[in-house]
Amino acid sequence: MALTETGKYSQGSVLGSVNPDIASERQTASFSVEKLTAWLDGGAERTRLRRAVVEAIERDPVFSRENQYFQSQNESYEAAVRKAVHLQKKMHEMGWTDDGPEFKYIYRALSGDLAFLLHRIFIRSISVLGSDKQIAKWIPLATQYQLIGSYAQTELGHGTYLQGLETTAVFDITTQEFVLNTPNISAMKWWPGDMGRSATHTVVFAQLYINGKCYGLHPFIVQIRSLQDHSLCPGITAGDIGPKMNFEHIDNGYLMLQNVRVPRENMLSKFCEVQPDGTYVRRGSQKINYFTMTTVRISLISDEVVIPLMKACTIAIRYSVVRRQSKLKPREQEAKILDYQTQQEKLLPQLAAAYAFYFISDYLQELFNRGYREIQRKNFDMLPELHAFSSGFKAMVTQYGTSAVKICLQACGGHGYSLLSGLPSLYTKIFASCIYEGENTILLLQTARFLIKCFMAASTGQSVPPSVTYLAAVTPEKCPAKNKLDFLSPDIYTEAYQHMAARLISSTAAKLQDLIQSGVKKHDAWNQCTVQLAQAAKAHCHYITVKNFAETVEKLETQPGIQKIMKHLCDLFALHGIFSNAGVFLHDGYVSGAQMDMVTASYLDLLAVIRKDAVPLVDAFDFTDKTLNSALGSYDGQVYQRLYEWAQKSPTNKQMSPAYERYLKPLLHKTLSKL
Amino acid sequence: MALTETGKYSQGSVLGSVNPDIASERQTASFSVEKLTAWLDGGAERTRLRRAVVEAIERDPVFSRENQYFQSQNESYEAAVRKAVHLQKKMHEMGWTDDGPEFKYIYRALSGDLAFLLHRIFIRSISVLGSDKQIAKWIPLATQYQLIGSYAQTELGHGTYLQGLETTAVFDITTQEFVLNTPNISAMKWWPGDMGRSATHTVVFAQLYINGKCYGLHPFIVQIRSLQDHSLCPGITAGDIGPKMNFEHIDNGYLMLQNVRVPRENMLSKFCEVQPDGTYVRRGSQKINYFTMTTVRISLISDEVVIPLMKACTIAIRYSVVRRQSKLKPREQEAKILDYQTQQEKLLPQLAAAYAFYFISDYLQELFNRGYREIQRKNFDMLPELHAFSSGFKAMVTQYGTSAVKICLQACGGHGYSLLSGLPSLYTKIFASCIYEGENTILLLQTARFLIKCFMAASTGQSVPPSVTYLAAVTPEKCPAKNKLDFLSPDIYTEAYQHMAARLISSTAAKLQDLIQSGVKKHDAWNQCTVQLAQAAKAHCHYITVKNFAETVEKLETQPGIQKIMKHLCDLFALHGIFSNAGVFLHDGYVSGAQMDMVTASYLDLLAVIRKDAVPLVDAFDFTDKTLNSALGSYDGQVYQRLYEWAQKSPTNKQMSPAYERYLKPLLHKTLSKL
Repeated sequence: MALTETGKYSQGSVLGSVNPDIASERQTASFSVEKLTAWLDGGAERTRLRRAVVEAIERDPVFSRENQYFQSQNESYEAAVRKAVHLQKKMHEMGWTDDGPEFKYIYRALSGDLAFLLHRIFIRSISVLGSDKQIAKWIPLATQYQLIGSYAQTELGHGTYLQGLETTAVFDITTQEFVLNTPNISAMKWWPGDMGRSATHTVVFAQLYINGKCYGLHPFIVQIRSLQDHSLCPGITAGDIGPKMNFEHIDNGYLMLQNVRVPRENMLSKFCEVQPDGTYVRRGSQKINYFTMTTVRISLISDEVVIPLMKACTIAIRYSVVRRQSKLKPREQEAKILDYQTQQEKLLPQLAAAYAFYFISDYLQELFNRGYREIQRKNFDMLPELHAFSSGFKAMVTQYGTSAVKICLQACGGHGYSLLSGLPSLYTKIFASCIYEGENTILLLQTARFLIKCFMAASTGQSVPPSVTYLAAVTPEKCPAKNKLDFLSPDIYTEAYQHMAARLISSTAAKLQDLIQSGVKKHDAWNQCTVQLAQAAKAHCHYITVKNFAETVEKLETQPGIQKIMKHLCDLFALHGIFSNAGVFLHDGYVSGAQMDMVTASYLDLLAVIRKDAVPLVDAFDFTDKTLNSALGSYDGQVYQRLYEWAQKSPTNKQMSPAYERYLKPLLHKTLSKL
Repeated sequence: MALTETGKYSQGSVLGSVNPDIASERQTASFSVEKLTAWLDGGAERTRLRRAVVEAIERDPVFSRENQYFQSQNESYEAAVRKAVHLQKKMHEMGWTDDGPEFKYIYRALSGDLAFLLHRIFIRSISVLGSDKQIAKWIPLATQYQLIGSYAQTELGHGTYLQGLETTAVFDITTQEFVLNTPNISAMKWWPGDMGRSATHTVVFAQLYINGKCYGLHPFIVQIRSLQDHSLCPGITAGDIGPKMNFEHIDNGYLMLQNVRVPRENMLSKFCEVQPDGTYVRRGSQKINYFTMTTVRISLISDEVVIPLMKACTIAIRYSVVRRQSKLKPREQEAKILDYQTQQEKLLPQLAAAYAFYFISDYLQELFNRGYREIQRKNFDMLPELHAFSSGFKAMVTQYGTSAVKICLQACGGHGYSLLSGLPSLYTKIFASCIYEGENTILLLQTARFLIKCFMAASTGQSVPPSVTYLAAVTPEKCPAKNKLDFLSPDIYTEAYQHMAARLISSTAAKLQDLIQSGVKKHDAWNQCTVQLAQAAKAHCHYITVKNFAETVEKLETQPGIQKIMKHLCDLFALHGIFSNAGVFLHDGYVSGAQMDMVTASYLDLLAVIRKDAVPLVDAFDFTDKTLNSALGSYDGQVYQRLYEWAQKSPTNKQMSPAYERYLKPLLHKTLSKL
């Protein structure tokens, strides 16, 4: 690479030509990358469709993310609105529909950076909670963007505990209206997306009062901004909640209501209605409400966790084969950092986790589809299991994924901290998934409640859902592995996970029982067990993830090349989990210290095996350079040139800072004469 | 709290009056907060001085951090320069000196948000590496700000492996100059602070060539910008590296050199010199270079890790006693979230860690001072130990501290993710400490190398530094604890940590020996053990931290109230470590499964005990509201009012977004007539 006359490296000279250090990694793949991609997509036809959608989006300059890392919060918001508005046009042009197969590819191509996502929830909530008449009125208005909706549930003082929401809606029989109020500062709606600056309408959750009696939480459609000039409606105070970690493009907002009146017809009334005379009528089952939350939690695993994690793995692994640092052997060239055991041990388990969670996401989606078919037949039996699964897995996968992306970022050394690497924004985005759609500890405890109930039922011989029958199964007391190779048997490690999960659940159930029998009140006893209950719920999800990975591998017998590498990844995911959580396996002697040494040996051996296929394994995720938007992760491996070119575009290099004239010049010049 | 006529809550009405939910926490402290503060400060006189400095800084509007969370990178940089320039004046006015006791309090009050920190390293490096003549010339220029310095070591392609740096400095005997060049894009200097936009000079590390022979890395003073108009000097290309995770206020820069000539006198020549005829002369010991890095690593533990961690604990714990959510007991008021066991288990171990690391930081400082006295007497014996300690503890404390601040952030639920909580910036700042001044894995492996060496020496009866004599000590094979109360004995748990650390070091040494004896080459064998070596180094540091905490508590006998609560925290820190790393204690049966249950029971019991003093324990850190700069963490506990008031100041609320006129209005109006 030569210096040009101006003292700058000639730009663009190497971009596009592939760095030999990454090219060589692709020549020795043990499997066909294209076949793995197609299998992950669910068939070559799907791959074709996905690529077509991504290409159409990326070709359109309105959707460019080139300046993403340089934008202020105001600029990000503006870009997200611009993209969302343009997307309507684009979808129309291309013949894509909201519920067609294309939407998830669009979302992937845009990395979720667009406005009106809460508008979609507004629509969904009316579809689920509204009467036929309400649906007929509001859904067309919303889908044609004659209004922009939001969804105002959480308040400054309440997130998790919905029953505690304080906003009130009092029925005024004389005018046939509901009067909505924010009685207290902690009752201010806080966080709803699309509400801070965009929305004209929102669904407000409020405590319903009729003749002084409280009927609990109900949803009301409330107009908050003028359709004419976007000014706030009378009685409305609203705005943006300010800067956050990531999601700068979303106008998360606040909302206060002061004697805001909406007609009686604006209470969503599929399940309950207030009649003109003030009579409150409840009808149908409200259980289905859980199902909406279940849907969102399951879909976020794929869109907001698995995809960011796959991107982070792609960036970090590609960078690790072009970054050379220090010497592994004296007198040789500096080594690729992926050749160091510690770097392999950082990244390869995260890669295995990305695959594991991709498969568990499919599993949950299928479970959900099965449940949905039952519900359509008015059979609600699967709801508790679905709720427990979606809660526990949302918590487990977001938490695991967050720590995995963090490891990827740190594995890139200093450059990982540059926004231009793409890793900080992936990290802060996945980090937020630990809190939205349910705080993780609360969710784990909901799963634990289900597990304890099932354990109790199973131990008294009652029937339980198939996913938890293992709680009553009899397993050997000792792991039968005799040498390190035995730990590459899925039966051996799956059984170890099963034993461990069952033990944590049963021992916590026993502690709970003991406390209650010793006279501790039920709710106090529960609180005193919650640390262990959360641990047990996580163990259950970890076990199901390992089991599902092993079963997925088994079904791959027609594709031996892919099956072999997936088997290695499955082994790695499982053994990494045992290695990292050794205590829970050793605790009752199921795995002995000597066996743990075998686990460690097999685990470390696997790193060297998978390392050879590391780049092909991330190439198979098939992210375009534009989707990754990373100076470190591009396909060609030209990391330093790209970092330099991108840095030059930063607003910090646009002009001499006013700080020079104001502060530096006077400082330096005051004493310049003495130099 | 009443609504005013305008529909907004009357502002300022509650700020200042203390929320009863936090006031009640302060009435039951088991110890004197003021006495604990004084003890932490090293005496009441120090507390007085600290408060005076902090007050002087906070009273001065130039140092205000009010808009910190709303600033662009350009604005942050400008503010940091403004503050740094103003600070010179302020220090002069107040009679504060750079090496006086005030500086660390100034830094604390400013939260480190000021420019010219690398200028300080520029000065330090000349003081350490420069000849007397060079010191006499450059130090006065730098301290009087007749120039602004930086320190250009790392390159795009090299951070950890300094020998691999590519910048060249060729001696030109005819002109008596060094000619500096950036031979390759990967050789571009990248990351140096104060260099992107401020510095006029920098110390450049380059490979020295004389008559075609390379003499390795040497430091050169290079002018990069005009003192007259700040334009780049001939042959210099420099700029800002763009957006990063945190440190927006610092102009981390890049630098390319094209045939840049500096006089022979600009090579820092305390240890080596190039004579006019090209003769290379090396003199004195270069070992002292380690000492500079040691100093920086030790001081960053206190300034960049312990203080942010203490702040995060203060914010999260104060918030957790004013946030009420859900019910612990039926029919009662919603509970303070700190009354939930899971919340205690998140936060209180982090509080204990903040104290543990505060004490270890003192311990390291003392060790360092002792070492420095020896070095002044030309005794370099302590250098290897000091290097190993500063490396290992830097890695262990930054990694632990990062995860601790993350837990504090997440424990605040959604509001933790608002920048206004102060937690995201504390988190991203401490997160960066894992990489600067040495990548943590590399540092742990340096400590491991020292430990393995000491272990080998100790096992053959040679003498080793006092901190590692335990490697040769004989300990019982089983932990003698009989019940859960035994685990509250520092002897019991300290011995368990010692046993565990010694076991990990000895078993890894054995693996290393076995590999080498089986014919694996030394460097390959080392690489194959690095995962376990890093784990062993961390275990060593964890053990020393526990031991030091227990010894600190023991010395407190004259202050029984403080001693008692510190003993609880020490127990909690130790037992949390055993609970969370159960595998390494169970592995060889030193701790049995039954004993681990006792550990768990004692650990969970402690949470409820310490919870009562949680607020007084963070109050004792004595951060002002301005220092915390957190809507959630203020002394008065008025979190919701403050979040609301601060959000209103956000630039996102300053005016209607142009997105309305450009995108929303056309979207809504095109179909408005149909509504």
